[in-house]
Amino acid sequence: MRAAIFRKGEIVVGEVAEPKPGPGQVLVKTLACGICGTDLHARVHADKMIEMSKYLPWRKPMDLSRDVVFGHEFCCEVLDYGPGCTGPIKKGARVVSIPRLIVGSEVQGIGYSNDNPGAYAERILLSEELIQEVPAHVSTETAALTEPLAVGIHAVEMAVLKGAEVPLVIGCGPIGLATIAALAYKRIGPIIASDYSAVRRALAQKLGADIVVDPSKTSPFKTWEEHAGLPPAERAKLGKSLVPSSNMRPAVIFECVGIPNVIQSVIEGAPQSARVVVVGVCMEADRQIPMYACFKELSLQYVLAWTTAEFTKALELIASGAVNVSPMVTGKVGIGEVAGAFAELANPNRHTKILVEPWRA
Amino acid sequence: MRAAIFRKGEIVVGEVAEPKPGPGQVLVKTLACGICGTDLHARVHADKMIEMSKYLPWRKPMDLSRDVVFGHEFCCEVLDYGPGCTGPIKKGARVVSIPRLIVGSEVQGIGYSNDNPGAYAERILLSEELIQEVPAHVSTETAALTEPLAVGIHAVEMAVLKGAEVPLVIGCGPIGLATIAALAYKRIGPIIASDYSAVRRALAQKLGADIVVDPSKTSPFKTWEEHAGLPPAERAKLGKSLVPSSNMRPAVIFECVGIPNVIQSVIEGAPQSARVVVVGVCMEADRQIPMYACFKELSLQYVLAWTTAEFTKALELIASGAVNVSPMVTGKVGIGEVAGAFAELANPNRHTKILVEPWRA
Repeated sequence: MRAAIFRKGEIVVGEVAEPKPGPGQVLVKTLACGICGTDLHARVHADKMIEMSKYLPWRKPMDLSRDVVFGHEFCCEVLDYGPGCTGPIKKGARVVSIPRLIVGSEVQGIGYSNDNPGAYAERILLSEELIQEVPAHVSTETAALTEPLAVGIHAVEMAVLKGAEVPLVIGCGPIGLATIAALAYKRIGPIIASDYSAVRRALAQKLGADIVVDPSKTSPFKTWEEHAGLPPAERAKLGKSLVPSSNMRPAVIFECVGIPNVIQSVIEGAPQSARVVVVGVCMEADRQIPMYACFKELSLQYVLAWTTAEFTKALELIASGAVNVSPMVTGKVGIGEVAGAFAELANPNRHTKILVEPWRA
Repeated sequence: MRAAIFRKGEIVVGEVAEPKPGPGQVLVKTLACGICGTDLHARVHADKMIEMSKYLPWRKPMDLSRDVVFGHEFCCEVLDYGPGCTGPIKKGARVVSIPRLIVGSEVQGIGYSNDNPGAYAERILLSEELIQEVPAHVSTETAALTEPLAVGIHAVEMAVLKGAEVPLVIGCGPIGLATIAALAYKRIGPIIASDYSAVRRALAQKLGADIVVDPSKTSPFKTWEEHAGLPPAERAKLGKSLVPSSNMRPAVIFECVGIPNVIQSVIEGAPQSARVVVVGVCMEADRQIPMYACFKELSLQYVLAWTTAEFTKALELIASGAVNVSPMVTGKVGIGEVAGAFAELANPNRHTKILVEPWRA
């Protein structure tokens, strides 16, 4: 079958082996699969991901001498079931799933694996116990956004918010936007969001940001301060502090960029005692001055992915209409155009989320 | 009066102006003052501390063209009170205080300030509302350890422990030792502690570490794993996990070294979902690969100093005998020997905490 293959550092069109569902597995046809920022990073930094696997006992590293097919944000159609499946979801139905494949007693990844192709391929394997049916009224494009929305929900859950926080979202790519949507759903605000791209700032507002900032013109941290003031009565109660403390509402900053120097700029700009949630995955060695974070007593919670409950919640919020993430889809391509789409996504004014539709000519 | 002065990057003996207590202030004689690791760092990296002040609205930067007297871990004798004091603590009594001076409505630092000399001087100013009397049975040397013990208590408080955690303390200098003492007092354990120095490992055991590791021989993270196993029954309950998770007791790692590359080594060695408390203050730019921390979903809580309640608690624990930090004192010097003591402290096999006694000849 055809796939957009990651081979020798490039994305090329080629043939990979037709997948055959094993026990408990489902053969599905890819209807749509989002291109994730992590895929863009992985194309350039796959060697760094492999190096990291040394420190992650659960992670089987990719073998770059062999083909890999990316793609972990998908909506698919059920084609066939492997042995031992009970098949409560009918063939022809649309499903989403966390990108994990259960193989015997093992839980394997889908998408950064030599064994389990991701959904830049015409067909993939999923696990029957993980698939969830997409309700009929939800579009395939929107269903494919379940995974990135789940990432935003997870980031907000990991922030353990109490309600009084004023969030600042740095970077309004798909993950920043999903984080904004998850914050808006929880009515945590005002939400301040920062991005260099006017297109992405407009999307941030659509998804629930209350104030957007162009960091080339205004410091997002200064804007945060302007909107995070305590009411005068509460501020007066604080009185003189013998240790450095904030006289603002609590700060929670979501770092949704994932390139070098952003974390240090957050550390420099953050107010005293801010909680920083690092959602962007910077794969390169980064520079940080720990002393700055110590003197501000910052907490940095690094996060990844989702729990299965959060993934389910993401589909629920999409299905109920509580959250509308569909505006972030800015393009759709066939397998032959994936390499071009990777290049396109470098320009944040043109594109935010491009979906791969492998069934296209 | 005489002082060990930080001047042009060196510690020199010289004269500074005799302090005069203003309203609410107390003139005290320094009986003993610990040399802190931060003082050692500050001698080399004072420029970096000044650079940082740009990002800390509460912090008045030092002016390095003028004299500074370090010293913020002190036990002093009350000599005289300024105007407006009520003097409940008698002249001649011994006191400790957080190193802060209240000047009008302002809270200023003591020790890294051009205005308020620290306790490497014969006499300093304190604030009446901050001084706490040292009980008669507590030695002056031990009372001078109130501040570093408070730092350890604070680090443990900021870890927000629930009781099941297995702590790993990286670095057994005074702050690592204080952290161990605070953990042992809270009966959180087994406490695993790591240091290259045999002397410091022995001190760690004296202060409450259950297992000590020489990281040149054994990975402290491997040792942690050996002691953090869940009972088999609890482990069986966990079952198969769809997202990476730890099947060990929760990890809390105290980084008490504060030099470059240690945080990244902790990120590499830490188990999934570990909480890292960064207590060591690394003043230099450091290298970190954020992706590793993301994939492990680590939290890094950077901390500094203490609250006033924790400082009070530290004195209480010392006074009640609940915690005995006195073994960490390995030397005492006069003002003329401070520069030499700074050099001595580079050798962790010889010294841990050196006290300055400015009244010595």
